[in-house]
Amino acid sequence: MLLIRNIGHSYWLVTFMSRTDLAEATAALTSPDTTTAGGEKRRPRERILDSATELFRTQGIGAVGVEIIAELANSNKMTLYRHFGSKEELLCVCLRQHADQVADLWRSLERRFPGDPKGQLHAWVEEATAVIFSDSSACLLANAAVEHKDPNHPVHRIVAEAKEKYRAQLADLCRRAGIEQAEELADALSLLFEGARISSQSSGPEGPHQKLKQSCIAMINAFSHR
Amino acid sequence: MLLIRNIGHSYWLVTFMSRTDLAEATAALTSPDTTTAGGEKRRPRERILDSATELFRTQGIGAVGVEIIAELANSNKMTLYRHFGSKEELLCVCLRQHADQVADLWRSLERRFPGDPKGQLHAWVEEATAVIFSDSSACLLANAAVEHKDPNHPVHRIVAEAKEKYRAQLADLCRRAGIEQAEELADALSLLFEGARISSQSSGPEGPHQKLKQSCIAMINAFSHR
Repeated sequence: MLLIRNIGHSYWLVTFMSRTDLAEATAALTSPDTTTAGGEKRRPRERILDSATELFRTQGIGAVGVEIIAELANSNKMTLYRHFGSKEELLCVCLRQHADQVADLWRSLERRFPGDPKGQLHAWVEEATAVIFSDSSACLLANAAVEHKDPNHPVHRIVAEAKEKYRAQLADLCRRAGIEQAEELADALSLLFEGARISSQSSGPEGPHQKLKQSCIAMINAFSHR
Repeated sequence: MLLIRNIGHSYWLVTFMSRTDLAEATAALTSPDTTTAGGEKRRPRERILDSATELFRTQGIGAVGVEIIAELANSNKMTLYRHFGSKEELLCVCLRQHADQVADLWRSLERRFPGDPKGQLHAWVEEATAVIFSDSSACLLANAAVEHKDPNHPVHRIVAEAKEKYRAQLADLCRRAGIEQAEELADALSLLFEGARISSQSSGPEGPHQKLKQSCIAMINAFSHR
C-alpha cells in the first residue's frame, strides 16, 4: 500500500515511499490486468498516464513529483518529459482522460436501462453511491481545482468543461425522466454528490456521505411531485 | 491581490509573489481593521495566525511556505517557529481557531431568532448561501483534508471533529424546528453545502452552487412533510 505523505516537496517523496511499497505499487500497475487484450504490455506513455492519475488522485497533485510517477510507471523522467513536456501538461492529459472515462457512464446507463430514463436516473444514484464507497480519495477533477488556486490556470478550464458536460448530461436525463425542473434537480443532485465526495475525505467514515443515497432519493421525490 | 501559483515548492513562492502584491497584502493585514479595539497593533502570534489562515485558505497548504507566511505577517521565520514549532503545528492551530469561529454561527442564529428554530434554520440557509458567494476558496477544513491524504495525519482528527460538531449542531437545530428525521435532513443539508463549496471552485461561476439556496429549501420542505 502507498503511504506517501503530503510534505510539499517531491524529492522527499521518493525516500519516504519504501522500496517494498514501490515494488508493490509497480507490480499492481504492471500486473496481467494492465496488459492489453492481446496480452501485450502497455506502452510507456499509457503506463505513465496511469501512474500519474493514480498518484495525483490518491496522494494529491502538489505532493507528487515526476520522479515518483516515472518510477511507478517503470519508466524514467526523460521518457516522461519526451511524452508530456512537463508535469503540468501531464496533469492536463490525465484530467482530459479522466473526463472521457466519466462520460462512459451515460452510455453504460443507457445500455443497462434502454428507453427507461427513470430507471437510468435511479441507476445514476446507485452509481454515485458506489463511487463514494469505492473511492474515498475524491474526484481528481475537483481535487485539481482545489489545489490550483489561480483561476487562470489551464487546469480550471478542463475541470469546468468536464463538470459542465456532466451537469448537462444529468439534466438531460432528469428531463427525459419527466422532471419539469430538470436543471434544478440536476444541480441539486450534483451538489449532493460533490458534497459526499468531499465529506468522505473530511468527515471520517461515519460522515454525512453515508446518507448520499437517501438524500438523492428524497430530492428526486421532491422534484417529481411538483 | 495575491497571485501565488501552486507550483509545489515553497521557495519559488517568495519570488513569484511580487513586491507590490506582498506590500498590498501586508497593508491589508496591518490595516486599522486588524488593530484591537483599544487601537493597539496585534501581536506577532496573532498576525502569523491570520496570515497563515488567509494563505492556506486562498493559496492552498502545500503551496505556501513559512517564509511567505512570516513575511505577510510582517514577522520572520524565527518568530514563527518560536510560537508554533513547525508549519504543521501552525496549520493545526489555524484549523482549531477556524473551527471555533465557525461555532460562533450557532450563537449568532440564536441571538437573531431567539426561540424560533424554524427561523434559525432558514437563516442557516441564508448564511450558507452567503458563504458560497463571499468566499470562493472553500473551507479551510475541507481543503486541509483534501491536501493531506494520510488518514493518520493529525489534521484529519481536527477536521473530522469540527465537521462532526457542526453536523450535531445542525441536526439539533433541525430537531428543534420540528423535523422528525433531523439527522437525515442535517446530513442532506451538509452535503449540499459542502458540494456548493467545492463546486464554486471547480465548476466556474455559473456552476450548480448557484442553486444551493433553492436546493436546501426543497430538501427542508421534503423533510417537513413526512
